[in-house]
Amino acid sequence: MNLKEKIRIIEDFPKEGISFKDVTTILKDSEALNFTINSMIEELKDEKIDIVVGPEARGFLFGVPVAYGLGAGFVPVRKKGKLPCETVAGAYDLEYGNDILEMHKDAIKPGQRVAIIDDLLATGGTIETVAKMVESLGGEVISINFVIELTDLKGREKIKDYKVQSLVEYNI
Amino acid sequence: MNLKEKIRIIEDFPKEGISFKDVTTILKDSEALNFTINSMIEELKDEKIDIVVGPEARGFLFGVPVAYGLGAGFVPVRKKGKLPCETVAGAYDLEYGNDILEMHKDAIKPGQRVAIIDDLLATGGTIETVAKMVESLGGEVISINFVIELTDLKGREKIKDYKVQSLVEYNI
Repeated sequence: MNLKEKIRIIEDFPKEGISFKDVTTILKDSEALNFTINSMIEELKDEKIDIVVGPEARGFLFGVPVAYGLGAGFVPVRKKGKLPCETVAGAYDLEYGNDILEMHKDAIKPGQRVAIIDDLLATGGTIETVAKMVESLGGEVISINFVIELTDLKGREKIKDYKVQSLVEYNI
Repeated sequence: MNLKEKIRIIEDFPKEGISFKDVTTILKDSEALNFTINSMIEELKDEKIDIVVGPEARGFLFGVPVAYGLGAGFVPVRKKGKLPCETVAGAYDLEYGNDILEMHKDAIKPGQRVAIIDDLLATGGTIETVAKMVESLGGEVISINFVIELTDLKGREKIKDYKVQSLVEYNI
Protein backbone atom coordinates (compact mmCIF):
# COMPACT_ATOMS: atom_id res chain seq x y z
CA MET A 1 0.00 0.00 0.00
CA ASN A 2 1.19 3.54 -0.78
CA LEU A 3 0.44 5.04 2.62
CA LYS A 4 1.25 8.57 1.44
CA GLU A 5 -1.87 8.51 -0.74
CA LYS A 6 -3.94 7.95 2.41
CA ILE A 7 -2.62 11.04 4.25
CA ARG A 8 -4.51 14.28 3.68
CA ILE A 9 -2.45 17.48 3.47
CA ILE A 10 -3.98 20.74 4.76
CA GLU A 11 -2.03 23.92 4.09
CA ASP A 12 -1.80 26.68 6.74
CA PHE A 13 -3.22 24.62 9.64
CA PRO A 14 -3.11 25.25 12.55
CA LYS A 15 -1.33 28.44 11.44
CA GLU A 16 0.07 30.00 8.27
CA GLY A 17 3.05 28.22 6.79
CA ILE A 18 2.33 24.82 8.36
CA SER A 19 1.56 22.03 5.89
CA PHE A 20 -0.48 19.81 8.20
CA LYS A 21 -0.39 16.04 7.69
CA ASP A 22 -3.85 14.73 8.58
CA VAL A 23 -3.73 11.12 9.78
CA THR A 24 -7.51 10.91 10.31
CA THR A 25 -7.75 9.77 6.68
CA ILE A 26 -5.54 6.78 7.55
CA LEU A 27 -7.57 5.98 10.65
CA LYS A 28 -11.01 5.98 9.04
CA ASP A 29 -9.83 3.71 6.20
CA SER A 30 -9.86 0.20 7.67
CA GLU A 31 -7.27 -1.11 5.21
CA ALA A 32 -4.90 1.82 5.75
CA LEU A 33 -5.28 1.53 9.53
CA ASN A 34 -4.59 -2.18 9.40
CA PHE A 35 -1.56 -1.66 7.12
CA THR A 36 -0.12 1.09 9.35
CA ILE A 37 -0.48 -0.82 12.62
CA ASN A 38 0.81 -4.06 11.09
CA SER A 39 3.82 -2.22 9.62
CA MET A 40 4.73 -0.78 13.04
CA ILE A 41 4.24 -4.19 14.69
CA GLU A 42 6.53 -5.71 12.03
CA GLU A 43 9.25 -3.14 12.86
CA LEU A 44 9.07 -4.06 16.57
CA LYS A 45 8.07 -7.71 16.75
CA ASP A 46 11.58 -9.08 17.40
CA GLU A 47 12.50 -6.45 20.02
CA LYS A 48 10.79 -8.07 23.04
CA ILE A 49 9.01 -4.80 23.86
CA ASP A 50 7.43 -4.73 27.34
CA ILE A 51 5.84 -1.29 27.14
CA VAL A 52 4.77 1.05 24.35
CA VAL A 53 4.77 4.73 25.38
CA GLY A 54 2.75 7.31 23.45
CA PRO A 55 2.21 11.03 23.99
CA GLU A 56 -1.28 12.62 24.11
CA ALA A 57 -3.28 12.65 21.96
CA ARG A 58 -2.18 11.36 18.55
CA GLY A 59 0.43 9.05 20.07
CA PHE A 60 -2.48 7.19 21.68
CA LEU A 61 -4.05 6.52 18.27
CA PHE A 62 -1.15 4.40 17.03
CA GLY A 63 0.55 3.40 20.28
CA VAL A 64 -2.25 1.35 21.86
CA PRO A 65 -3.07 -0.87 18.87
CA VAL A 66 0.65 -1.55 18.37
CA ALA A 67 0.99 -2.44 22.09
CA TYR A 68 -2.06 -4.72 21.76
CA GLY A 69 -0.63 -6.38 18.65
CA LEU A 70 2.77 -6.90 20.29
CA GLY A 71 1.29 -8.27 23.52
CA ALA A 72 2.87 -5.33 25.39
CA GLY A 73 1.41 -2.80 27.83
CA PHE A 74 0.80 0.87 27.01
CA VAL A 75 1.79 3.93 29.02
CA PRO A 76 0.25 7.31 28.14
CA VAL A 77 2.23 10.55 28.35
CA ARG A 78 -0.25 13.30 29.13
CA LYS A 79 -0.48 17.07 29.36
CA LYS A 80 0.11 18.49 32.84
CA GLY A 81 -2.64 17.79 35.38
CA LYS A 82 -4.39 14.93 33.58
CA LEU A 83 -2.80 11.97 35.37
CA PRO A 84 -4.18 11.20 38.84
CA CYS A 85 -1.12 9.75 40.64
CA GLU A 86 2.45 10.83 41.28
CA THR A 87 4.20 11.85 38.05
CA VAL A 88 7.52 12.77 36.49
CA ALA A 89 7.36 15.87 34.30
CA GLY A 90 9.22 17.19 31.26
CA ALA A 91 8.92 20.48 29.33
CA TYR A 92 8.90 20.34 25.55
CA ASP A 93 8.73 22.55 22.46
CA LEU A 94 6.26 21.70 19.73
CA GLU A 95 6.42 22.60 16.05
CA TYR A 96 3.95 25.30 17.11
CA GLY A 97 3.93 26.17 20.84
CA ASN A 98 5.17 24.40 23.97
CA ASP A 99 3.78 22.57 26.98
CA ILE A 100 4.55 20.30 29.93
CA LEU A 101 4.21 16.51 29.74
CA GLU A 102 3.75 14.04 32.58
CA MET A 103 4.04 10.27 33.10
CA HIS A 104 3.08 8.23 36.14
CA LYS A 105 6.17 7.49 38.23
CA ASP A 106 5.14 3.84 38.61
CA ALA A 107 4.32 3.41 34.91
CA ILE A 108 7.61 1.78 33.96
CA LYS A 109 9.71 -0.68 35.94
CA PRO A 110 13.52 -0.46 35.77
CA GLY A 111 14.87 -2.59 32.93
CA GLN A 112 11.65 -2.71 30.92
CA ARG A 113 12.13 -2.56 27.15
CA VAL A 114 10.24 0.43 25.76
CA ALA A 115 9.12 1.52 22.28
CA ILE A 116 7.96 5.12 21.94
CA ILE A 117 5.30 5.72 19.27
CA ASP A 118 3.91 8.94 17.86
CA ASP A 119 2.18 9.98 14.67
CA LEU A 120 4.78 12.45 13.42
CA LEU A 121 8.46 13.39 13.85
CA ALA A 122 8.91 17.13 13.36
CA THR A 123 11.67 18.88 15.37
CA GLY A 124 11.90 15.92 17.76
CA GLY A 125 11.53 18.04 20.89
CA THR A 126 8.49 16.20 22.23
CA ILE A 127 9.96 12.77 21.69
CA GLU A 128 13.37 13.68 23.12
CA THR A 129 11.53 14.77 26.29
CA VAL A 130 9.51 11.55 26.38
CA ALA A 131 12.65 9.42 25.91
CA LYS A 132 14.38 11.17 28.82
CA MET A 133 11.31 10.68 31.03
CA VAL A 134 11.29 6.94 30.20
CA GLU A 135 14.99 6.71 31.05
CA SER A 136 14.51 8.63 34.29
CA LEU A 137 12.19 5.81 35.37
CA GLY A 138 14.76 3.16 34.43
CA GLY A 139 13.20 2.08 31.14
CA GLU A 140 15.37 1.19 28.15
CA VAL A 141 14.33 2.99 24.94
CA ILE A 142 14.69 0.26 22.31
CA SER A 143 13.08 2.07 19.38
CA ILE A 144 11.17 5.23 18.48
CA ASN A 145 8.58 4.72 15.74
CA PHE A 146 6.59 7.28 13.77
CA VAL A 147 4.02 7.05 11.02
CA ILE A 148 5.34 10.25 9.39
CA GLU A 149 8.74 11.97 9.39
CA LEU A 150 9.28 15.58 8.23
CA THR A 151 12.89 15.16 7.17
CA ASP A 152 13.77 18.85 6.63
CA LEU A 153 13.09 19.61 10.31
CA LYS A 154 15.96 17.26 11.21
CA GLY A 155 14.22 15.78 14.26
CA ARG A 156 16.24 12.59 13.75
CA GLU A 157 19.42 14.47 14.73
CA LYS A 158 17.90 15.43 18.09
CA ILE A 159 17.21 11.76 18.89
CA LYS A 160 20.28 10.32 17.12
CA ASP A 161 21.24 8.16 20.11
CA TYR A 162 18.12 6.03 19.52
CA LYS A 163 16.91 3.66 16.81
CA VAL A 164 14.36 5.72 14.87
CA GLN A 165 11.91 4.34 12.31
CA SER A 166 9.19 6.01 10.23
CA LEU A 167 6.79 4.70 7.60
CA VAL A 168 6.41 7.80 5.40
CA GLU A 169 8.73 10.78 4.76
CA TYR A 170 8.00 14.33 3.62
CA ASN A 171 10.55 17.07 2.89
CA ILE A 172 8.39 19.66 4.62
CA MET B 1 -9.84 -12.01 34.65
CA ASN B 2 -11.31 -9.77 37.36
CA LEU B 3 -10.82 -6.48 35.54
CA LYS B 4 -11.92 -4.45 38.57
CA GLU B 5 -8.74 -5.48 40.38
CA LYS B 6 -6.74 -3.86 37.58
CA ILE B 7 -8.42 -0.44 37.90
CA ARG B 8 -6.83 2.00 40.37
CA ILE B 9 -9.18 4.24 42.36
CA ILE B 10 -8.03 7.74 43.31
CA GLU B 11 -10.26 9.69 45.67
CA ASP B 12 -10.84 13.43 45.19
CA PHE B 13 -9.33 13.67 41.69
CA PRO B 14 -9.59 15.90 39.71
CA LYS B 15 -11.62 17.60 42.43
CA GLU B 16 -13.06 16.83 45.87
CA GLY B 17 -15.82 14.23 45.93
CA ILE B 18 -14.83 12.53 42.66
CA SER B 19 -13.70 8.90 43.00
CA PHE B 20 -11.53 8.71 39.88
CA LYS B 21 -11.23 5.39 38.04
CA ASP B 22 -7.69 5.22 36.67
CA VAL B 23 -7.49 3.04 33.55
CA THR B 24 -3.74 3.55 33.12
CA THR B 25 -3.28 0.50 35.36
CA ILE B 26 -5.20 -1.57 32.81
CA LEU B 27 -3.20 -0.18 29.92
CA LYS B 28 0.27 -0.78 31.32
CA ASP B 29 -0.58 -4.41 32.21
CA SER B 30 -0.26 -6.32 28.93
CA GLU B 31 -2.63 -9.10 30.04
CA ALA B 32 -5.29 -6.67 31.29
CA LEU B 33 -5.01 -4.60 28.10
CA ASN B 34 -5.33 -7.73 25.97
CA PHE B 35 -8.32 -8.94 28.00
CA THR B 36 -10.09 -5.57 27.80
CA ILE B 37 -9.65 -5.11 24.06
CA ASN B 38 -10.58 -8.73 23.31
CA SER B 39 -13.70 -8.43 25.49
CA MET B 40 -14.85 -5.35 23.57
CA ILE B 41 -14.09 -7.02 20.23
CA GLU B 42 -16.12 -10.04 21.38
CA GLU B 43 -19.11 -7.78 22.16
CA LEU B 44 -18.97 -6.28 18.66
CA LYS B 45 -17.64 -8.98 16.35
CA ASP B 46 -21.01 -10.03 14.90
CA GLU B 47 -22.27 -6.47 14.35
CA LYS B 48 -20.49 -5.79 11.01
CA ILE B 49 -19.06 -2.53 12.37
CA ASP B 50 -17.62 -0.23 9.65
CA ILE B 51 -16.36 2.55 11.91
CA VAL B 52 -15.45 2.86 15.59
CA VAL B 53 -15.84 6.39 16.94
CA GLY B 54 -14.00 7.50 20.10
CA PRO B 55 -13.85 10.85 21.90
CA GLU B 56 -10.56 12.54 22.88
CA ALA B 57 -8.48 11.47 24.65
CA ARG B 58 -9.33 8.30 26.61
CA GLY B 59 -11.75 7.10 23.93
CA PHE B 60 -8.73 6.87 21.62
CA LEU B 61 -7.00 4.46 24.01
CA PHE B 62 -9.63 1.75 23.64
CA GLY B 63 -11.33 2.72 20.37
CA VAL B 64 -8.41 2.30 17.98
CA PRO B 65 -7.29 -1.18 19.09
CA VAL B 66 -10.90 -2.38 18.96
CA ALA B 67 -11.26 -0.92 15.44
CA TYR B 68 -8.00 -2.63 14.44
CA GLY B 69 -9.17 -5.94 15.90
CA LEU B 70 -12.55 -5.71 14.16
CA GLY B 71 -11.04 -4.72 10.80
CA ALA B 72 -12.96 -1.43 11.00
CA GLY B 73 -11.83 2.18 10.61
CA PHE B 74 -11.55 4.68 13.47
CA VAL B 75 -12.90 8.23 13.65
CA PRO B 76 -11.67 10.55 16.42
CA VAL B 77 -13.97 13.06 18.11
CA ARG B 78 -11.79 15.96 19.21
CA LYS B 79 -11.92 19.12 21.28
CA LYS B 80 -12.77 22.26 19.31
CA GLY B 81 -10.05 23.51 16.93
CA LYS B 82 -7.98 20.32 16.73
CA LEU B 83 -9.33 18.87 13.48
CA PRO B 84 -8.00 20.47 10.29
CA CYS B 85 -10.95 20.08 7.89
CA GLU B 86 -14.65 20.97 7.89
CA THR B 87 -16.37 19.68 11.05
CA VAL B 88 -19.71 19.16 12.75
CA ALA B 89 -19.79 20.35 16.37
CA GLY B 90 -21.67 19.41 19.53
CA ALA B 91 -21.62 20.91 23.04
CA TYR B 92 -21.49 18.56 26.00
CA ASP B 93 -21.45 18.52 29.79
CA LEU B 94 -18.82 16.45 31.56
CA GLU B 95 -18.94 14.95 35.02
CA TYR B 96 -16.76 17.96 35.87
CA GLY B 97 -16.95 20.89 33.40
CA ASN B 98 -18.10 21.23 29.80
CA ASP B 99 -16.65 21.68 26.34
CA ILE B 100 -17.27 21.56 22.58
CA LEU B 101 -16.55 18.46 20.50
CA GLU B 102 -15.96 18.21 16.76
CA MET B 103 -15.90 15.49 14.08
CA HIS B 104 -14.83 15.77 10.46
CA LYS B 105 -17.91 16.12 8.23
CA ASP B 106 -16.55 13.54 5.80
CA ALA B 107 -15.56 11.06 8.53
CA ILE B 108 -18.65 8.89 8.21
CA LYS B 109 -20.56 7.90 5.09
CA PRO B 110 -24.36 7.60 5.25
CA GLY B 111 -25.41 4.08 6.22
CA GLN B 112 -22.12 3.10 7.85
CA ARG B 113 -22.50 0.93 10.96
CA VAL B 114 -20.86 2.67 13.91
CA ALA B 115 -19.74 1.58 17.39
CA ILE B 116 -18.93 4.36 19.85
CA ILE B 117 -16.26 3.50 22.42
CA ASP B 118 -15.14 5.38 25.52
CA ASP B 119 -13.42 4.47 28.77
CA LEU B 120 -16.21 5.43 31.14
CA LEU B 121 -19.97 6.06 31.24
CA ALA B 122 -20.77 8.74 33.84
CA THR B 123 -23.75 11.05 33.19
CA GLY B 124 -23.79 10.08 29.50
CA GLY B 125 -23.71 13.67 28.26
CA THR B 126 -20.56 13.31 26.20
CA ILE B 127 -21.65 10.10 24.53
CA GLU B 128 -25.19 11.35 23.81
CA THR B 129 -23.58 14.29 21.98
CA VAL B 130 -21.24 11.97 20.06
CA ALA B 131 -24.15 9.69 19.06
CA LYS B 132 -26.13 12.66 17.71
CA MET B 133 -23.10 13.87 15.75
CA VAL B 134 -22.69 10.41 14.19
CA GLU B 135 -26.39 10.35 13.25
CA SER B 136 -26.21 13.89 11.81
CA LEU B 137 -23.64 12.49 9.34
CA GLY B 138 -25.91 9.58 8.41
CA GLY B 139 -24.16 6.92 10.49
CA GLU B 140 -26.12 4.19 12.28
CA VAL B 141 -25.15 3.84 15.96
CA ILE B 142 -25.17 0.05 16.44
CA SER B 143 -23.65 -0.09 19.92
CA ILE B 144 -22.02 2.07 22.58
CA ASN B 145 -19.31 0.29 24.56
CA PHE B 146 -17.52 1.34 27.74
CA VAL B 147 -14.84 -0.22 29.88
CA ILE B 148 -16.42 1.22 33.06
CA GLU B 149 -19.98 2.26 33.98
CA LEU B 150 -20.82 4.39 37.04
CA THR B 151 -24.34 3.08 37.52
CA ASP B 152 -25.55 5.60 40.13
CA LEU B 153 -25.07 8.47 37.66
CA LYS B 154 -27.74 6.87 35.44
CA GLY B 155 -25.95 7.66 32.18
CA ARG B 156 -27.63 4.63 30.62
CA GLU B 157 -31.01 6.41 30.86
CA LYS B 158 -29.70 9.31 28.76
CA ILE B 159 -28.68 6.93 25.97
CA LYS B 160 -31.54 4.42 26.43
CA ASP B 161 -32.36 4.40 22.71
CA TYR B 162 -29.05 2.65 22.01
CA LYS B 163 -27.53 -0.73 22.80
CA VAL B 164 -25.13 0.00 25.68
CA GLN B 165 -22.47 -2.39 26.99
CA SER B 166 -19.87 -2.04 29.74
CA LEU B 167 -17.26 -4.41 31.14
CA VAL B 168 -17.13 -3.20 34.77
CA GLU B 169 -19.70 -1.46 36.97
CA TYR B 170 -19.28 0.77 40.04
CA ASN B 171 -22.06 2.25 42.18
CA ILE B 172 -20.22 5.55 42.39
